[in-house]
Amino acid sequence: MTNSNQLAVKIVLDAWFSNVKRTDEVFNKLTDEELMNEIAPGKNRVIYLLGHLTAVHDRMLPLLNLDERAYPQLDDIFLTSPDKSVTEIPSAINLRAFWKGTNEKLEEHFKKLQADEWIQKHNSVSSDDFVKEPHRNRLNVVLGRTNHLSYHLGQLALLK
Amino acid sequence: MTNSNQLAVKIVLDAWFSNVKRTDEVFNKLTDEELMNEIAPGKNRVIYLLGHLTAVHDRMLPLLNLDERAYPQLDDIFLTSPDKSVTEIPSAINLRAFWKGTNEKLEEHFKKLQADEWIQKHNSVSSDDFVKEPHRNRLNVVLGRTNHLSYHLGQLALLK
Repeated sequence: MTNSNQLAVKIVLDAWFSNVKRTDEVFNKLTDEELMNEIAPGKNRVIYLLGHLTAVHDRMLPLLNLDERAYPQLDDIFLTSPDKSVTEIPSAINLRAFWKGTNEKLEEHFKKLQADEWIQKHNSVSSDDFVKEPHRNRLNVVLGRTNHLSYHLGQLALLK
Repeated sequence: MTNSNQLAVKIVLDAWFSNVKRTDEVFNKLTDEELMNEIAPGKNRVIYLLGHLTAVHDRMLPLLNLDERAYPQLDDIFLTSPDKSVTEIPSAINLRAFWKGTNEKLEEHFKKLQADEWIQKHNSVSSDDFVKEPHRNRLNVVLGRTNHLSYHLGQLALLK
């Protein structure tokens, strides 16, 4: 573990937590009815983004080798199907709880990991490949998912 | 310079370059006329985002202590004023060239910086504060600007 490694972990995690917080604030400000609005005419509904982000974050638990996922049932609705193609989706109240619970569980694990554990491989890369491509580590996953979150946060900002 | 520091630099720069490329592809696919479209009804026009992102990236040159900025005249139009409030804006052809030139200049500098130079302070933090907050380094700026780019890239994706 090196000092500069700790620095890198800090800047990546700071960005993650700050973007989760900003997204949280957007969802919390909206009523359950408003969650059914589209972010722009003919585009995804807010509730779809809520489910989509929850599914993506839930998948980080096994990907980062931290835990089993809690909500695999979300994938069919919010990852592999476009919005409005599945008629029965979880309720707003449940999705809000899944979203909150998933981010809290990630936070719990993130805070326990030591700096040198962050540069360990994630679960979608083989040990052989990791020897050649050591940047395919846990930290890289969090950085990529933070960008993914920003991407959808920019869309949610259009609701204003 | 440590190996783990090099890794952190690589994952942050990879994310930067990949997002610049994706955004480039969006702008390149659009005609000059299409740049005048709004990303959603009543929202920013694409040309505003092009100017906005160029201004933000141009400002990274002095912020990262790499170079003087090239296009300070963009700030009044694309940073401090909302879209459609300034009637005379640079032409699409000029803005496309500014955008391309700015990212190329950044890339040139980024490729020359050594890993230990990335954890040097950026220009908006005093030397005193940097001693206490060493995460306020160049790498952190690039990470933040990558998230900013993803945010607007998510909005540009709504054009499809």
